[in-house]
Amino acid sequence: MTNPRDERRENYPYRVDIPTRWMDGDPYGHVNNVVYYSWFDTAVTKMMYERGVLALHDCPAIGLCVESQCGFFAPVEFPETVEARVRIGRMGDKSLKYEVGLFLEGREEPAAAGYFVHVFVDRATRRPLPLTAEQKAAIADLVVAA
Amino acid sequence: MTNPRDERRENYPYRVDIPTRWMDGDPYGHVNNVVYYSWFDTAVTKMMYERGVLALHDCPAIGLCVESQCGFFAPVEFPETVEARVRIGRMGDKSLKYEVGLFLEGREEPAAAGYFVHVFVDRATRRPLPLTAEQKAAIADLVVAA
Amino acid sequence: MTNPRDERRENYPYRVDIPTRWMDGDPYGHVNNVVYYSWFDTAVTKMMYERGVLALHDCPAIGLCVESQCGFFAPVEFPETVEARVRIGRMGDKSLKYEVGLFLEGREEPAAAGYFVHVFVDRATRRPLPLTAEQKAAIADLVVAA
Amino acid sequence: MTNPRDERRENYPYRVDIPTRWMDGDPYGHVNNVVYYSWFDTAVTKMMYERGVLALHDCPAIGLCVESQCGFFAPVEFPETVEARVRIGRMGDKSLKYEVGLFLEGREEPAAAGYFVHVFVDRATRRPLPLTAEQKAAIADLVVAA
Repeated sequence: MTNPRDERRENYPYRVDIPTRWMDGDPYGHVNNVVYYSWFDTAVTKMMYERGVLALHDCPAIGLCVESQCGFFAPVEFPETVEARVRIGRMGDKSLKYEVGLFLEGREEPAAAGYFVHVFVDRATRRPLPLTAEQKAAIADLVVAA
Repeated sequence: MTNPRDERRENYPYRVDIPTRWMDGDPYGHVNNVVYYSWFDTAVTKMMYERGVLALHDCPAIGLCVESQCGFFAPVEFPETVEARVRIGRMGDKSLKYEVGLFLEGREEPAAAGYFVHVFVDRATRRPLPLTAEQKAAIADLVVAA
Repeated sequence: MTNPRDERRENYPYRVDIPTRWMDGDPYGHVNNVVYYSWFDTAVTKMMYERGVLALHDCPAIGLCVESQCGFFAPVEFPETVEARVRIGRMGDKSLKYEVGLFLEGREEPAAAGYFVHVFVDRATRRPLPLTAEQKAAIADLVVAA
Repeated sequence: MTNPRDERRENYPYRVDIPTRWMDGDPYGHVNNVVYYSWFDTAVTKMMYERGVLALHDCPAIGLCVESQCGFFAPVEFPETVEARVRIGRMGDKSLKYEVGLFLEGREEPAAAGYFVHVFVDRATRRPLPLTAEQKAAIADLVVAA
């Protein structure tokens, strides 16, 4: 397995740029650790919306986060923009493990890297709802061996 | 009308204490201005839930914020707890104007004071939904002339 | 004075685009009212950094928010991007009143509009620190009569 | 090692109660996963302040989060209050691994459990700053074998 600090942009096929916000900073001057998870959450959800797997309305399935983890390697400061990169590390029938790297302009190494696991459930009953073959096909290109 | 800096705890009948969180602080060391509105939002919604006027689930009406304002008079720092105080400045058929003061331990003057206006709409259609006589009665004691 | 709902993009010379984040949404499905103030805060601070008036480090002055207000006219939903527009409504020696409009793609009317007042103080002593002629010149083009 | 779902309150000596805020909820109605990390961050920092190991001002050391992880087992909804429980899983010379469990009223099992690692650095130089014997003594009672 790759050491997370050795991850590079090309290891993650999906990209979304997320600008920092002023209030992301904490009293130590840099962006608070909690906010990185918001970037994970945003990158993953945006990808799933773009691929048509999930939607804000009129979609029977929702993804619930059951586990996440992040290693923090370098500070991020306002007004930097973070390049969030996503790959799928494990595609199950009822869950996906996304692996996310956060990169800053001018640096090869990630500022942070970690993962985020969604289980899919019915929006109303909150019972497990397996991914369909069509849903899996829509994101198959993002499945990358770590 | 009272100068907002001259507001005192006793001018607001409803009280809820809200502890600061570490990430509330911004790079200037104190709690970011945006977070104060989260305290307004929390105090008002908690009061409406406690009085049975609104509920997270199984309640036909939701309150949409159409306007808010805040004057900031003193910094707040982690790990202080804010005493949020609420009164109702105007009760209409389809809207309520809440007035909120935020107080810190050991000080008479507010750290901040402002207002927050809810209009009530049907959760599904988002069309205006007038408050019932029962709903109005549940909060009548909080209506205080400014 | 213009009715805030009648404000248009061209009334505000400065522009910054801010994408929504997944967690911006609240249980009613749309972006929570509090988050709009984070967009105000971000747009204003980014502008001041770009113009060289303020900086995260190595800048004697900081801007403290002493008052803000917002009118909310239309919901915003993830993953929309908000176009934040800023003008300066009043330039004093020790304070600036910024006026901000938030616009969504495909709509002329603002989703929200309001203001945000900074007073400038010394970073260390927190005593008032007047804007210099150079600082005022750097943002003079943004002063627009309402 | 204990399965995280089998952790109980008594496994963590330190306690702080953290009320939810309205905006913590996301469009699925429950508190967003990101917010749990804010509770970790708040519980850990509050403990370190109470024990006199860290302070907002006038303290040479600051703690930087280098890794965190969380397993999410049950939803949390506004206006619930979370009971955050903390123990120290590993005390090094320059770092601490805190283990945190989040509990809801009326339930023995945690709603979430995970960890959070701080390295200690000099506030100005950001170079590693070992914990003193006095600092270690102030939190020694929280070191619990998992």
